[in-house]
Amino acid sequence: MGAESFVLRGDICYSLSPREVRCVEGGYLVCVDGRSAGVFEELPERYAASPLVDCTGRLVIPGLCDIHLHAPQYAFRGLGMDLELLDWLNTHTFPEETRYADLDYAARAYDVFAGDLRRCATTRAVVFGTVHVPATELLMERLEATGLVTYVGKVNMDRNAPERLVETSARSAEATRRWLEDVCGRFERTHPIITPRFTPSVTDGLMAELGALREKYDLPVQSHLSENPSEVSWVKELCPWSSCYADAYDHFGLLGEKTVMAHCVHSTDEEVELLRRTGTYVAHCPQSNAQLASGIAPVRRYLDLGMSVGLGTDVAGGASLSMFRCMADAVAASKLRWRLVDQSLAPLTTQEALWLATVGGGSFFGRVGSFAEGYELDALVLNDSGIRTPRKLTVWERLERFVYLAEEGGRIERKFVAGREVSLD
Amino acid sequence: MGAESFVLRGDICYSLSPREVRCVEGGYLVCVDGRSAGVFEELPERYAASPLVDCTGRLVIPGLCDIHLHAPQYAFRGLGMDLELLDWLNTHTFPEETRYADLDYAARAYDVFAGDLRRCATTRAVVFGTVHVPATELLMERLEATGLVTYVGKVNMDRNAPERLVETSARSAEATRRWLEDVCGRFERTHPIITPRFTPSVTDGLMAELGALREKYDLPVQSHLSENPSEVSWVKELCPWSSCYADAYDHFGLLGEKTVMAHCVHSTDEEVELLRRTGTYVAHCPQSNAQLASGIAPVRRYLDLGMSVGLGTDVAGGASLSMFRCMADAVAASKLRWRLVDQSLAPLTTQEALWLATVGGGSFFGRVGSFAEGYELDALVLNDSGIRTPRKLTVWERLERFVYLAEEGGRIERKFVAGREVSLD
Repeated sequence: MGAESFVLRGDICYSLSPREVRCVEGGYLVCVDGRSAGVFEELPERYAASPLVDCTGRLVIPGLCDIHLHAPQYAFRGLGMDLELLDWLNTHTFPEETRYADLDYAARAYDVFAGDLRRCATTRAVVFGTVHVPATELLMERLEATGLVTYVGKVNMDRNAPERLVETSARSAEATRRWLEDVCGRFERTHPIITPRFTPSVTDGLMAELGALREKYDLPVQSHLSENPSEVSWVKELCPWSSCYADAYDHFGLLGEKTVMAHCVHSTDEEVELLRRTGTYVAHCPQSNAQLASGIAPVRRYLDLGMSVGLGTDVAGGASLSMFRCMADAVAASKLRWRLVDQSLAPLTTQEALWLATVGGGSFFGRVGSFAEGYELDALVLNDSGIRTPRKLTVWERLERFVYLAEEGGRIERKFVAGREVSLD
Repeated sequence: MGAESFVLRGDICYSLSPREVRCVEGGYLVCVDGRSAGVFEELPERYAASPLVDCTGRLVIPGLCDIHLHAPQYAFRGLGMDLELLDWLNTHTFPEETRYADLDYAARAYDVFAGDLRRCATTRAVVFGTVHVPATELLMERLEATGLVTYVGKVNMDRNAPERLVETSARSAEATRRWLEDVCGRFERTHPIITPRFTPSVTDGLMAELGALREKYDLPVQSHLSENPSEVSWVKELCPWSSCYADAYDHFGLLGEKTVMAHCVHSTDEEVELLRRTGTYVAHCPQSNAQLASGIAPVRRYLDLGMSVGLGTDVAGGASLSMFRCMADAVAASKLRWRLVDQSLAPLTTQEALWLATVGGGSFFGRVGSFAEGYELDALVLNDSGIRTPRKLTVWERLERFVYLAEEGGRIERKFVAGREVSLD
């Protein structure tokens, strides 16, 4: 399926707003030159000549956007979940990331990662690599070959990391510049993103250099923010001049509408206001925030404030690569937060989780995450016949159930990114 | 595989205690007449003539015991997760359970349920039916045919339920007596269990009748306890004479070493002491407790007190039938509880989750849940080769990872209950 103009027939669902999902049973999703021309109950005459992709009886939904995960950590997903963030980084994560100096190891690991990402529900992703330029370029090549659209970052770390991983400030900046020269414009679907690991790993001097590179190359930014209380305290010590943790990025021009900050579990009011004012994205990573005992981010509050929010698996803080699981976890975590922390913030609904995983995160990539006219056409075709029940279900009920049971009877049958089909073999 | 004496070769793991897992790579698990004769690094000469089941390279672990779930709710798993317990019961659960008056519907629904339970990781289960005797007997027939060992309850409800579901006290007791006469001793693997739904659904008079039946037939008991704050308050109003919610069962002789109480999220100190003193089992159901916004049970406290604790999926408060998912959820929930509620109670480890899902719940069925000599031999053979990684892992690391990723690349290849193989077709 190489054509980028076609008509997809199936049971179509997509978010109109955080609370409203449009469902069209036996509808027609029209793709013209890789973009949606809309969803129709009857196929308009003008598209009658387009090739028909017949997915009758299947659910058709927008592709899911994973806006925070770590490619090198995929190798130890599901392992070592016995520590909080800072000890986890030193015990499990940094030693694993050190291995990516070895390009043979990186090739084996990234082959697995890219293959699994290609086959899962994710169509677009914002990805951390490691500090290593060759391994990060290899990762970009592997991801380009998947057909997915991704932002990929060479990580910067010039303090508080093991000797074999830490860079000098000068070499980190220079390696980043060299990497950007190598990869900017080199790929069709795989783009670089400025990636200071997090404030504890990056000196003010290097942060300033990264701010300058971001501006020079007009690049997006990804990092971590207010994930864990010990991390937040540490940043206060490391950047006594900052008014809040987010300020330690903002000061160097690293927040804004093309920045995604993972977690924001423990953000102060001032920090939330700074994120809102700058239009910075929050990547909510509920499974990771549970597994590393970080807490639960107040996503309802961020939505009420009109902030930009998407979902992230945060592999390998989270074990699962499944964005369906991530959606279900977001709903479940919000209910526990309501019960245990703050009953003024209503739990998320499954509808809102769908919105976060599609339009919420998708907007980081442009007009992505919806089937409304003009959006890039990312779509999943879902077979839910293996989730058996004697009941007759509506299209929405079938999708709701799929969110919770994608891995227990659900099957992703086809996947399209910007109108092009991705192989699931 | 009909034989009940054989030798199983594989990478064997089982719990020696909540904190200690024994792992034997390329070991031999010996089954004699349906019971374990132990796990050996080298096969003892005296078993050399036994048939060898060669599962080299596969993980072999004890079967998992799901000690709380609702068979009739399986039909709407993953749906309607937008309410708290009491509204959820009235809106979603009771209307669905009403359908089981229709034996045709029950047959279709229980075929699906029994088939999926047979193929999942569960080897033993403690199951709620509905109030309907014919449907409950049909459920027992279907479960008997799976080869699993289960306790199944005809539910009792004589108040606070819709007209089409509620029984009169006399008819409820009489139907239960008739059902027990029908099914006691009728099946090899499927046994009745006294099942007052929960105090809000059962008058004191009926509770007393059930206590008498329990004693007369020497039966186990299952019910719900302190799941939700509104439920707990309601019980205080309904049973002003009781010293705590658990007392509203204990008063009628319904607690004890053959009773399992689901949830115990909001149990008072007095209630915990009553459960401990009577040896009552707690069925911890972490996914349900999140999805119905109930809270998180203090499982660490129950373990520290030496109480009997197992895990339950609580389908359809929980959407997933997977006991691996249940184990992972138990660990994750305990970390959130540590972070958000009480840092004096350490999070559960994956080792402890394995213990809870095997020995913890298994002991409700007798000598079940371990491969130690004399235990009934319930075993799962797990293929983890689809959970790809470039790393070399220990046997324990492979199992730890399987707990978190069973549904994302893991595969259950074979399943044995009391030494007999269960078909996974």
